[in-house]
Amino acid sequence: MKKQRKRRKLQTPSDDVRNRILDAAAELVAEGGFPALRMDDLARRAGIAVGTFYLYFEGKDDLFVQLVIGYTDRLLERFHEADLQDGTVTERLARRFDRYLDFVDENRAGFLYFRDSGAVDTTGGRLSAWALKVHAADTQPLLEEGMATGEIREQDAELLAHAVVGLLQHIVGVWLDDPDSMSRDRIRRFLDGFIAFGMQPRSRTAGDGRR
Amino acid sequence: MKKQRKRRKLQTPSDDVRNRILDAAAELVAEGGFPALRMDDLARRAGIAVGTFYLYFEGKDDLFVQLVIGYTDRLLERFHEADLQDGTVTERLARRFDRYLDFVDENRAGFLYFRDSGAVDTTGGRLSAWALKVHAADTQPLLEEGMATGEIREQDAELLAHAVVGLLQHIVGVWLDDPDSMSRDRIRRFLDGFIAFGMQPRSRTAGDGRR
Repeated sequence: MKKQRKRRKLQTPSDDVRNRILDAAAELVAEGGFPALRMDDLARRAGIAVGTFYLYFEGKDDLFVQLVIGYTDRLLERFHEADLQDGTVTERLARRFDRYLDFVDENRAGFLYFRDSGAVDTTGGRLSAWALKVHAADTQPLLEEGMATGEIREQDAELLAHAVVGLLQHIVGVWLDDPDSMSRDRIRRFLDGFIAFGMQPRSRTAGDGRR
Repeated sequence: MKKQRKRRKLQTPSDDVRNRILDAAAELVAEGGFPALRMDDLARRAGIAVGTFYLYFEGKDDLFVQLVIGYTDRLLERFHEADLQDGTVTERLARRFDRYLDFVDENRAGFLYFRDSGAVDTTGGRLSAWALKVHAADTQPLLEEGMATGEIREQDAELLAHAVVGLLQHIVGVWLDDPDSMSRDRIRRFLDGFIAFGMQPRSRTAGDGRR
């Protein structure tokens, strides 16, 4: 008991130091990708000794998991910030799409590494599945609100949330795999149309009388 | 020159043996997943000596790459078979969705392993990106045909192909991560509605006069 307390004290946990390490790691990942991240560069950037890193993280794998959790948190924060502004559900969803595109654009190297290496197992399940589920679960209430107000056609809200999240992640990945092949505007325009109206021609939709 | 010819002869390349190995591997992956695949089980199932395996594949990683290429081929074959039947573009697309769901359902363990481990680098780029691009490129002409006939609303055909492929892969992954949580029918119904009509309510679509 005493020993444990002593051990805890030695770790001098400080949210400030932990966040400094995570911020420095995010910067270095953005610059050079995760595989190239070196402990001594990270320590220098965070202004800590290398040994201090291991008081906060078990190693590089643990850092990756914590980074993904941190990125997910920050993405949701931006969504919630966007939700605070007025607007119809459709407008608020469109703002979320913009926030998502901005976020991925700012964190290109991190996003691609997450997409390609995020399937690591954790005690909470596969990391990438966890992050996408969190994103979908956060989107679902907005979709349900839209169905309640009549802005969104009644459909399976859970699957719709998964579909929107999966579609965004895939399209953005196609973009970042070859960023010069298409503009952000082109993606945004496509998403607006497809997510709102699907594939059916508007005229046929209007005329065929099906619900 | 002479040496190379001799080496080739020793390899006695035979499409039949190669396909037998790939088929046996696909069966074993379906039964126990790829990581648990053992060379001696594979050799026994394929009716070859273990040494023969290495005449056809460099090792287990190479086998994985060749399996994904083979799975992708087979998926496209099913699509093309479905395309031979008559029907509108919409009907033919719906048949493709069914083929895709069947295929993934029959190859659950293989699909999940591919999704989670398919981001390996190959000389042709990342394996999973390659497979999804092949799928999208195969879908795009059908979408363009639909736009030409007026069955599909004019939009970015390339991005639409990527969107449909990415959405299918993600939704199917959510399903197979927890197969008891939802039925195949539920997924099929959702996909039909969302891909055709998007999120907008049909009545608003008909009434708002926008294109």
